[in-house]
Amino acid sequence: MSVEQSAGAAGVSELFQLLRDGAPRTRAELAKSTGLARSTVAARVDELMRMGLISAVAGAVSTGGRPPSQFALNPRARLAIAADIGASHATVALTDLAGTVLIEHSEPLAVALGPEPVLTWLVDNARMLLERMGRTVDHVAAMGIGVPGPVEHSTGQPVNPPIMPGWDRFDIPGWVQQHIGVPVLVDNDVNIMALGERALAWPGVEHLMFVKVATGIGAGMISGGHLHRGAQGVAGDIGHVQISRGSDVACPCGNHGCLEALASGPAIARALREQGVEAHSGGDVVDLVKRGNIDAIQAVRQAGRDIGEVLTTSVSLMNPSVIAIGGGMARVGEHLIAGVREVVYKRSTPLATEYLSIVQSAAAEKAAILGASMLAVEHALSPESLSGFAR
Amino acid sequence: MSVEQSAGAAGVSELFQLLRDGAPRTRAELAKSTGLARSTVAARVDELMRMGLISAVAGAVSTGGRPPSQFALNPRARLAIAADIGASHATVALTDLAGTVLIEHSEPLAVALGPEPVLTWLVDNARMLLERMGRTVDHVAAMGIGVPGPVEHSTGQPVNPPIMPGWDRFDIPGWVQQHIGVPVLVDNDVNIMALGERALAWPGVEHLMFVKVATGIGAGMISGGHLHRGAQGVAGDIGHVQISRGSDVACPCGNHGCLEALASGPAIARALREQGVEAHSGGDVVDLVKRGNIDAIQAVRQAGRDIGEVLTTSVSLMNPSVIAIGGGMARVGEHLIAGVREVVYKRSTPLATEYLSIVQSAAAEKAAILGASMLAVEHALSPESLSGFAR
Repeated sequence: MSVEQSAGAAGVSELFQLLRDGAPRTRAELAKSTGLARSTVAARVDELMRMGLISAVAGAVSTGGRPPSQFALNPRARLAIAADIGASHATVALTDLAGTVLIEHSEPLAVALGPEPVLTWLVDNARMLLERMGRTVDHVAAMGIGVPGPVEHSTGQPVNPPIMPGWDRFDIPGWVQQHIGVPVLVDNDVNIMALGERALAWPGVEHLMFVKVATGIGAGMISGGHLHRGAQGVAGDIGHVQISRGSDVACPCGNHGCLEALASGPAIARALREQGVEAHSGGDVVDLVKRGNIDAIQAVRQAGRDIGEVLTTSVSLMNPSVIAIGGGMARVGEHLIAGVREVVYKRSTPLATEYLSIVQSAAAEKAAILGASMLAVEHALSPESLSGFAR
Repeated sequence: MSVEQSAGAAGVSELFQLLRDGAPRTRAELAKSTGLARSTVAARVDELMRMGLISAVAGAVSTGGRPPSQFALNPRARLAIAADIGASHATVALTDLAGTVLIEHSEPLAVALGPEPVLTWLVDNARMLLERMGRTVDHVAAMGIGVPGPVEHSTGQPVNPPIMPGWDRFDIPGWVQQHIGVPVLVDNDVNIMALGERALAWPGVEHLMFVKVATGIGAGMISGGHLHRGAQGVAGDIGHVQISRGSDVACPCGNHGCLEALASGPAIARALREQGVEAHSGGDVVDLVKRGNIDAIQAVRQAGRDIGEVLTTSVSLMNPSVIAIGGGMARVGEHLIAGVREVVYKRSTPLATEYLSIVQSAAAEKAAILGASMLAVEHALSPESLSGFAR
């Protein structure tokens, strides 16, 4: 929160930031924590109640006509629109300010159709969901959108996204805002999955890596409590790190021996086919593992070791306390994680692994929508947004 | 800056944060930028001038007895004590608030003597320097100390430091504060070198990696403008990442093929000795390279490639815009950097290397002291410290 940004807030956002944790507080507590005068607190509480962002806590309403004495965040005060655009599938949902999904719609949709058809679908379906809920755009605090490619954080524009033809430098926030007038935040899908995973399972954790293993392999990193996006927004792009095994395996990126060329869903399926096992996709591999196919189990375990090889460096470099493995291939369960653990615990420095948890994603297929909601809510409830709103 | 922390500042710290960049501003400009009332600004400016932290800008002093109209940070208002404790050498300096070294003392000192002898040396020499300058502890804003091991950020205590026997969990800030009553900040030496490098050469850069290549190999990372220390403060510990070459080379850590066992100063010297070249230390290797010894040049180039192999993953993961190579071995010049560049530009993804600079450290041997000064100054001039001070 910079000085300039906070200047116009006049106490509203300060109060609200305190109340965002959901814990109810009295006016006196708010005055003490903020250092604001009692009279200022009273006026600002009224303002936040008028905005609908906080409510008097039911149990604390006193009798005898005096005003209610405790206040807390009202998660149903506004909605967030959360969207997850995948390579071949898209989902849009309405959530409350706590990230709870209220209604959701999902269907096959090729991102390769280009920005206007895909975003038209998104806007149309967001409006459809609002209508179903009997709500309007006025109830929406913000929209968060995850896309399958690198995004420049400051503008929300995809930058050279390999699997999103036609989207390079497309002004997603500008276009969407023009069609549905709410603030729009855009980020890479793995980044928002990291946000979603933390919100659901690791709320207090400052250093978390979310690794998506699916058709591609990528990581979203939370560092010091915030997403680490890097200088060009391509941080976490670990799919094309070279691993020691299989330097003869060509990758579509032009190099050999990339992690993605050996340990992604399609790569495991291809390796199994070469052994005479019928597998044409990552989904087939998951099914084989669930049916106890020993070749598939061994292949998945090896993929885990390959991923572990790259994560070993990541652990030494970043010293996270949690690595959550998600994406479609994580559905194979412990076989993949076991391979990751085997290598990371053997090769990383003891100091970096002493308190390190390597776990399956708890948010699983809900990570992206939850994260997109968090992206929207974080923005909508930030001091900057509130101060603009309160002016 | 959390709400609670800023509450007592009553405008003092807001004004000061604006003035910290060194640019002079008028009272009217300060009122506009902070949203504070003109009368409040006038009172706060007087307060900061009384604290000595800002001064009227000389050229702007108006004639005719009216108060001076422009104000700016006064870097000489206070001193910082900056200390760099190495494995076998220690330095202490006094700097101004802009990090400029005013006086410095350096001598051989084994960190293995343990905390009390080393910190006694530090405190005695800091006092000696103050005396030489005709200043007292009252002039000191804070002290920053770099140590050659992992440090828990919240407590300033070394945690399982491999080359600092007797220092594990020693309360450095507590001990030093007891002997010289100033705020004390402690961090890992490579972290403070990253701070120093950025302050000197890359002030606007948000994502920077500083790689120290000396007896050991480690990295300090600035992510989103802040040091990334990781969950246990051991982030950047890349010396024990396994590289593809030399898996038969044992490392004192218990593993084989660690980067440090192949590419550190002593490792290069050992490899040269095995080829019959007289080299007993990293310093010998540097001398050989400077004299044009082809074996030494080739060995250093290969060490650069080894380091590049680990940095390739770091670049994909972190997407920095600058990698600065420092430490004693960086004195060999372009031969080391060339090896690093060769591998990183070949293997990292084009998006992550498009705007990546891989350069020799500009701060060089001054990086640590400058960084320790920055660590102290950042703390002393933070809104939290100022608000406590102004109360």
